[in-house]
Amino acid sequence: MAGSGFGTLFRITTFGESHGAALGVIVDGCPAGLEISEEEIQAELDKRKPGQSRFTTMRQEGDKVEILSGIFEGKTTGTPICMMVRNQDHHSADYGNIADSFRPGHADYCFTEKYGFRDYRGGGRSSGRETIGRVAAGAIAKKLLASLGIQITAYVRSIGPVVAEKTDLSMIEENALRMPDADAAKAAESYLDGLRSETDSSGALVECRVTGMIPGLGDPVFDKLDALLAGAMMSIGAVKGVEFGDGFAVAAAKGSENNDAFALDENGKPVKVTNHSGGVLGGISDGSDLFMRIAFKPTPSIAQPQKTVKKNPDGTYEEEEMVIHGRHDPIIAPRAVPVVEAMAALVLADAVLKNLSSKMDGIKTFYGK
Amino acid sequence: MAGSGFGTLFRITTFGESHGAALGVIVDGCPAGLEISEEEIQAELDKRKPGQSRFTTMRQEGDKVEILSGIFEGKTTGTPICMMVRNQDHHSADYGNIADSFRPGHADYCFTEKYGFRDYRGGGRSSGRETIGRVAAGAIAKKLLASLGIQITAYVRSIGPVVAEKTDLSMIEENALRMPDADAAKAAESYLDGLRSETDSSGALVECRVTGMIPGLGDPVFDKLDALLAGAMMSIGAVKGVEFGDGFAVAAAKGSENNDAFALDENGKPVKVTNHSGGVLGGISDGSDLFMRIAFKPTPSIAQPQKTVKKNPDGTYEEEEMVIHGRHDPIIAPRAVPVVEAMAALVLADAVLKNLSSKMDGIKTFYGK
Amino acid sequence: MAGSGFGTLFRITTFGESHGAALGVIVDGCPAGLEISEEEIQAELDKRKPGQSRFTTMRQEGDKVEILSGIFEGKTTGTPICMMVRNQDHHSADYGNIADSFRPGHADYCFTEKYGFRDYRGGGRSSGRETIGRVAAGAIAKKLLASLGIQITAYVRSIGPVVAEKTDLSMIEENALRMPDADAAKAAESYLDGLRSETDSSGALVECRVTGMIPGLGDPVFDKLDALLAGAMMSIGAVKGVEFGDGFAVAAAKGSENNDAFALDENGKPVKVTNHSGGVLGGISDGSDLFMRIAFKPTPSIAQPQKTVKKNPDGTYEEEEMVIHGRHDPIIAPRAVPVVEAMAALVLADAVLKNLSSKMDGIKTFYGK
Amino acid sequence: MAGSGFGTLFRITTFGESHGAALGVIVDGCPAGLEISEEEIQAELDKRKPGQSRFTTMRQEGDKVEILSGIFEGKTTGTPICMMVRNQDHHSADYGNIADSFRPGHADYCFTEKYGFRDYRGGGRSSGRETIGRVAAGAIAKKLLASLGIQITAYVRSIGPVVAEKTDLSMIEENALRMPDADAAKAAESYLDGLRSETDSSGALVECRVTGMIPGLGDPVFDKLDALLAGAMMSIGAVKGVEFGDGFAVAAAKGSENNDAFALDENGKPVKVTNHSGGVLGGISDGSDLFMRIAFKPTPSIAQPQKTVKKNPDGTYEEEEMVIHGRHDPIIAPRAVPVVEAMAALVLADAVLKNLSSKMDGIKTFYGK
Repeated sequence: MAGSGFGTLFRITTFGESHGAALGVIVDGCPAGLEISEEEIQAELDKRKPGQSRFTTMRQEGDKVEILSGIFEGKTTGTPICMMVRNQDHHSADYGNIADSFRPGHADYCFTEKYGFRDYRGGGRSSGRETIGRVAAGAIAKKLLASLGIQITAYVRSIGPVVAEKTDLSMIEENALRMPDADAAKAAESYLDGLRSETDSSGALVECRVTGMIPGLGDPVFDKLDALLAGAMMSIGAVKGVEFGDGFAVAAAKGSENNDAFALDENGKPVKVTNHSGGVLGGISDGSDLFMRIAFKPTPSIAQPQKTVKKNPDGTYEEEEMVIHGRHDPIIAPRAVPVVEAMAALVLADAVLKNLSSKMDGIKTFYGK
Repeated sequence: MAGSGFGTLFRITTFGESHGAALGVIVDGCPAGLEISEEEIQAELDKRKPGQSRFTTMRQEGDKVEILSGIFEGKTTGTPICMMVRNQDHHSADYGNIADSFRPGHADYCFTEKYGFRDYRGGGRSSGRETIGRVAAGAIAKKLLASLGIQITAYVRSIGPVVAEKTDLSMIEENALRMPDADAAKAAESYLDGLRSETDSSGALVECRVTGMIPGLGDPVFDKLDALLAGAMMSIGAVKGVEFGDGFAVAAAKGSENNDAFALDENGKPVKVTNHSGGVLGGISDGSDLFMRIAFKPTPSIAQPQKTVKKNPDGTYEEEEMVIHGRHDPIIAPRAVPVVEAMAALVLADAVLKNLSSKMDGIKTFYGK
Repeated sequence: MAGSGFGTLFRITTFGESHGAALGVIVDGCPAGLEISEEEIQAELDKRKPGQSRFTTMRQEGDKVEILSGIFEGKTTGTPICMMVRNQDHHSADYGNIADSFRPGHADYCFTEKYGFRDYRGGGRSSGRETIGRVAAGAIAKKLLASLGIQITAYVRSIGPVVAEKTDLSMIEENALRMPDADAAKAAESYLDGLRSETDSSGALVECRVTGMIPGLGDPVFDKLDALLAGAMMSIGAVKGVEFGDGFAVAAAKGSENNDAFALDENGKPVKVTNHSGGVLGGISDGSDLFMRIAFKPTPSIAQPQKTVKKNPDGTYEEEEMVIHGRHDPIIAPRAVPVVEAMAALVLADAVLKNLSSKMDGIKTFYGK
Repeated sequence: MAGSGFGTLFRITTFGESHGAALGVIVDGCPAGLEISEEEIQAELDKRKPGQSRFTTMRQEGDKVEILSGIFEGKTTGTPICMMVRNQDHHSADYGNIADSFRPGHADYCFTEKYGFRDYRGGGRSSGRETIGRVAAGAIAKKLLASLGIQITAYVRSIGPVVAEKTDLSMIEENALRMPDADAAKAAESYLDGLRSETDSSGALVECRVTGMIPGLGDPVFDKLDALLAGAMMSIGAVKGVEFGDGFAVAAAKGSENNDAFALDENGKPVKVTNHSGGVLGGISDGSDLFMRIAFKPTPSIAQPQKTVKKNPDGTYEEEEMVIHGRHDPIIAPRAVPVVEAMAALVLADAVLKNLSSKMDGIKTFYGK
């Protein structure tokens, strides 16, 4: 179990390298009877596909998903669902000159230390293409959640110094940067054009909101819903920070400000009057919207000369100045938006299933006793 | 597996409620031959014990640990180590009046929704006393890591508006607030005294640094070292945010600023010139110090009247104004410092063990082939 | 995770050595709202307690269980249930003379090879007392299953050459050997008296039947219900074989004999006409009784001189003839009967919970969608 | 995690149905640097391929494996290895007439009860083709073990009444029935020819021996090496019994007969004089050969008319007499031999990796401390 598996009951295992034969995922534990089509999965994959605008790499990959198992007559059967995307647009030669060098900001040095050598083509397993399996599996998780009324939406809040002041969700898919604010998107495009001309790149802030939440999801102590979500988000390449609700601002807050009062809604059910907590209390969903923010670092592959170290065939090292060629996004976050949604969906689908065994009443009802 | 287990090879399972008979932990998977004494574990537990200053609750608990298994003649045997602390200072009556009410900022409502009812005494399983098991297990993990030269140090960087400007690690245990700056500690004490007179509480920021790191720890994709650490930190009650290295600041940074160049040290080994990454690249330790920051919310138990909802015996709800009595810290973070260290130690000890199977060379050497 | 954890959702972790401070178990994942008392758990533990007859060891242990957490006002709360039994009747001195010797048929040599040294007192972790945690946890699992109508009964079918010809379940607790046949029990007692006078011991065959089964439990491929049960039974010390339904006899059978025809019962529901399969088809329960047989080897601790090897302080080995002193049962199986039932209960309780997420229909019903 | 995952560190997840697009497996956790080729994996798959003799089905599948990830320049990289075999020879129409009927001895009824419906084509997930993933992964595990000197050999000991009296391992691949005795193989062929003419089938007994064992593999209590092996073997379709060493015979044995004495070998190292235990003591390998026996039931698909039940479109059931058409082996065991070897290899490779963290000495050596 070297880290490519995720989840307990809704469990996925991903595979694949940037320049290998194929990438994909097995979903084991999806309940039977969920209607899902290849088109629905493809639609999610298309959101993370490169080549969509001048801010994303020019690789013209089809990234066409093929379902290999687990779906019969349009429905999940309860058995493992394997989905695969073949790699097509290989330019391995682009990477030959950096096979022995450690690109700054990349995992090259760490992989070589850990495994003794590495698949250097396009970052190998540490490439952003690794997220194909996450997104394909996330599409199924999203469908499961949607059948319970749970919806997940992520978008880019800020890019470098440019912050989206508005939060118009209908705008997200209307601009290549996935910002919920058309003006901010335009300003950010200018900012990125400037960076590109300097062969530089930018970080960004992504937000994710989940509506239609069911209270009671998540478990006390280590498997708190926010703990699992934080781990899930931090597992996405380039993420350096995660916060829930008011997040880091709570460090300067007072209890009287930060506590969310409870009141009754029109149906006489408890609701929180505010949502400083971001939808989780004690690690368990409280029925209000989940809200989290995720910080992405700038693309580490930049075309400027950088100082680094290379490993010689005899095992010694030497310092060098390297220039990374190839095609690279000046920003990661817009294409990471569907990955953020996928990871949130995977955590929540698993939590929905785990919660089924929380009390005897539900169990007796299920078995008709 | 309802969430009280943590880790893969160095695996712990905790138990216990605030006002039950006892709290504790089983560590399964600690290698044989580690020297450890009850005193070493007690020393860690004493750091999280209440009643240490006027900023912490007045409960005079001994919190004496008893080792029940797994250690023989002063050394771990490779079999499960169970450690237990008995509860002594019960004032359950204090909690009778809130048995049916949902305290704002607490998990009461969520537990009731999830399980149908709850152990309302002192927060039950969601009490801060739950961390006893983490700290006891963490003491063993720390000892294991120390034998490899890895050291973990956490402290409080800021409390409300008061920020420690200096980072003098020798100061941490010299003030009740565990700040690495004596002046800041004094200012924070004044701030908290003021809050206490207003029956209010404060959030805080904790930092954690790990030195003597081994490169190669952590696994690609979902079990990235920072992903596991982020989940571990977020699983501590009251944590709302976690960041690594430059953290949220990367969202506004450029790649040329954020990348850490590699150079050679005096022994001809690769080292990073800067550490914006916080010691992890691609989810694998890069040999430089691990550095993370964790945001703690203010204590939710405040003595001010708060608006909330109670559940009636007939299952209906009604709004009410409640006042929480009992003894509560106006700040959580200082006592959480050993918990942060414990969680970091648990993740790292597990990573150290998992890494043993990363390459064939090491395996053949181990088995003498 | 060095092997003391068992189960996925209904997950237990046991601890404790024969001559340590205490033995016990944490059950994590028991649903909330199950009524259970210390007396019910004690009743199961009393069945495995030594000192019940002249065929079991004379250690007069109280083996009194204490519940440390997870039960409040007579019901499980959904949080971890820790149960502990203190060791009392230590005669560690009895074991001093064999501290460096490898008792034939015991794990001494293997523990020393694996861990470098071992807790030699009474077998340490490999003692039969390790099963206390299994039986305590099994008592809770049995209660959960009973609330769904599932009952587990094990008994001793044969001891050495003496086979119980009758299967009168009301007899099981009427004789110290737990045979379902009073005459066979008497004959087996004579056989064991003879063996004892020869300082020898006997193997035995245990059968286990589960009634009130729910169809659909277990999962295809690796987590087949019979695969999990086989692993569970083989994990009990001294077990050397497990078989289901017709078991090893199928190797000589024809398909036309071995297949179980289906028919309709009086309610028009499918039932199997025969039960050669032992209640499982394709690894999933088929609604008929589960039936399995488990072979226990003779007690390895016999008072005859035996040839073996000891490890010298300098790490060299030498051959020796050893005699094991102390008190030992001439037969293991009767006291293992409650352990067999406990392991069956643990597997089934877990399967009952895992099955809740098998289809979307049940999930939507649970969440009222 | 619906049961298609196996192992802890050397972890596999299989996928695929008999008549779906493809079958295969992901191996996550294989150490980096193991040399392995597609040819070596194909060689193992060829052993389980149908169409090899008149005793196996006539499906002419190529069953060509394709490696999709995790291997670079002929060596494992430490990242997930996905291997896939496409289905080719579909005769789904053969199965249309039994889509709603429950074949005796098959999982049809159980799948329908569990999931609400099922992929009825060729048994779907419960087909013997599911073992493709096991065998492909097992090929890698075998290579890993071979590099440590561990070899696994399985064969058919008996078929119906015909028992191999000789154990000539060189004969195994010389006859289609994989018996280690040419004469027995000839007699068994006659027996099976007779059964086939009666449209009947036969059970069989398989033995598996592991040489070159390392002492110390396996963990106490639940993850005993024999417990994991028993679960692994019982997870193979059609297996009804597993035994180790003397197996069920121990039930009639005496301790003085069953204990294996220790002595010193020519190098002064401890060895067992006999091997009644089958290579495991207290669940940990003792250095002698592992030896186990596995009982396979007769092929349930027989061409005789059988009484069963079908489910009508309105959800009611009715009794019927059915005849199963299609091509079916009159015996399962010979083709299961490579599956038995694969499962043994998977358990042992995982045990080899888990054992690396058993003692501090080895860990300090690994990290050079």
